[in-house]
Amino acid sequence: MAVQFGHIAGYPTGSPFKNREELRIAGLHSQNMAGISGNAKTGADAIVVSGGYVDDADYGEIIIYTGHGGRDPNTGRQIRDQELIDSGNAALVRSELEGLPVRVIRGRHNKRHHQSPFAPSSGYRYDGLYRVESHWAKMGVDGFRVWQFRLVKLKDGEVSTPKDTSPASIDQYAVGPAPVTTSIMQRIVRNSMIAHIVKSWYSHECQVCGLAIQVEGGLYSEGAHIRGLGQPHHGPDVPENLLCLCPNDHVRFDNGAIYLTDELHVMDALTGQAVGQLRVHKNHKIDLRHVAYHRECWTKD
Amino acid sequence: MAVQFGHIAGYPTGSPFKNREELRIAGLHSQNMAGISGNAKTGADAIVVSGGYVDDADYGEIIIYTGHGGRDPNTGRQIRDQELIDSGNAALVRSELEGLPVRVIRGRHNKRHHQSPFAPSSGYRYDGLYRVESHWAKMGVDGFRVWQFRLVKLKDGEVSTPKDTSPASIDQYAVGPAPVTTSIMQRIVRNSMIAHIVKSWYSHECQVCGLAIQVEGGLYSEGAHIRGLGQPHHGPDVPENLLCLCPNDHVRFDNGAIYLTDELHVMDALTGQAVGQLRVHKNHKIDLRHVAYHRECWTKD
Repeated sequence: MAVQFGHIAGYPTGSPFKNREELRIAGLHSQNMAGISGNAKTGADAIVVSGGYVDDADYGEIIIYTGHGGRDPNTGRQIRDQELIDSGNAALVRSELEGLPVRVIRGRHNKRHHQSPFAPSSGYRYDGLYRVESHWAKMGVDGFRVWQFRLVKLKDGEVSTPKDTSPASIDQYAVGPAPVTTSIMQRIVRNSMIAHIVKSWYSHECQVCGLAIQVEGGLYSEGAHIRGLGQPHHGPDVPENLLCLCPNDHVRFDNGAIYLTDELHVMDALTGQAVGQLRVHKNHKIDLRHVAYHRECWTKD
Repeated sequence: MAVQFGHIAGYPTGSPFKNREELRIAGLHSQNMAGISGNAKTGADAIVVSGGYVDDADYGEIIIYTGHGGRDPNTGRQIRDQELIDSGNAALVRSELEGLPVRVIRGRHNKRHHQSPFAPSSGYRYDGLYRVESHWAKMGVDGFRVWQFRLVKLKDGEVSTPKDTSPASIDQYAVGPAPVTTSIMQRIVRNSMIAHIVKSWYSHECQVCGLAIQVEGGLYSEGAHIRGLGQPHHGPDVPENLLCLCPNDHVRFDNGAIYLTDELHVMDALTGQAVGQLRVHKNHKIDLRHVAYHRECWTKD
């Protein structure tokens, strides 16, 4: 079954399924066993959430989903580290980086794990489209490293053809035979009054590379939280937890391509080498606990 | 009256006002006459929409708002070009670049202009917070250049403190005495299946600078529409109207800091000099009509 993104015709949100085989035949999920449908090249088009991982957490519109691999098939416990290069995990990263919609299918929870109030009482249920907002590593409850993904439910207006435009037919580019969602959010940059203050200290110059993007009428920069806001990171929206970055370095920082040492050296995660020193304004007291939290999300040790 | 962002305590969305003086005293809008409240340094915190400009268009949740300047005070018609450097216009650009919320106040329309179904029948009404999504120049109906701003209404969930975090008090950083909105969207990057195809042609390398942002697990790039989607540009979501750009060049392109010639030279708008040649894949037929449309939004001639 080919990977195909978006809703599947004939199966609206809430559709029930008896088992994985029905899901596969309907085209909602390409796998019989694995939780993640898709691969590193095309991205992930669907996941099954069934509480198989003790590190999972389901808040309804927000899901913390543990990646694939390293689990004992009999006990369900982690027995070695997960790798991001694993096909399922890499597929979710690709969906995050590209802004591809992921179908979420919830399954009845196995009795040995915690019960989610959002799980169906039997079988499986298609629960609509989510986007992969971010990912990070953490030490799982079984003592091995797992990768986790934060998925956020897409609202109706976030998965549609803009109503006030007249797009040409996109059938010729469709990945599969199903209707293709035209546009979803790939990345959202938020601003807050706190970020406003931090950016003003730097006159919008990136703390990593020094660039301030200049357009007619002003300068542009982004406020990057060192420890993320919201579930599950709970980082605070305070200057001690914010950096002023250019968009390119913001993407790099949020995806762990760069991280900071306690001496505020900027490290390239791919080479493990220092690539510079973070620029820090005299008013800006950066909290090293948040720096360590971010680093632990992206480094092996 | 100081510039203060966000809702003003005691005046919920829908609040009516008899006149501009009442609005000013309540702290909703700092000016007695001008439509734009704010300045180039702080950004714009409020606008009055009253149909004074013939190029305005009000679609309810989307407003096309014409900038300040160049108008005959007696006839209301444009008698010379508007400048982006004008304080009110520069204030709206600052709010766009920073992601600052703008209060929209609708006023009864003057009889000599078209009537908006969204305008109150008398006086003024506070209609909630909008974000400035984009701006551009065009030849107004009176034959002079005007600047226009696309404002999009913020939904409740887009103007709030994340519920699942525990922010420290931000009172000490508040710009004004009123409650400050904690976080609003500054920039949204969308993806579509069409953008997915275009990005794959370039292996995510920016068509302007050649950079592909590399993170563990994959490459990152953004699809940039040459002629914008939706009101009022109505650009199509087709490969001929898309570029594969890095985030930094995407911000530059969308704000007119770079534009293209018909020979696909990349021009720096600030210097008027060519800074390179657009990289173009053999499968990528770029529609020069869209290139000309974008260029006309940002160049004087």
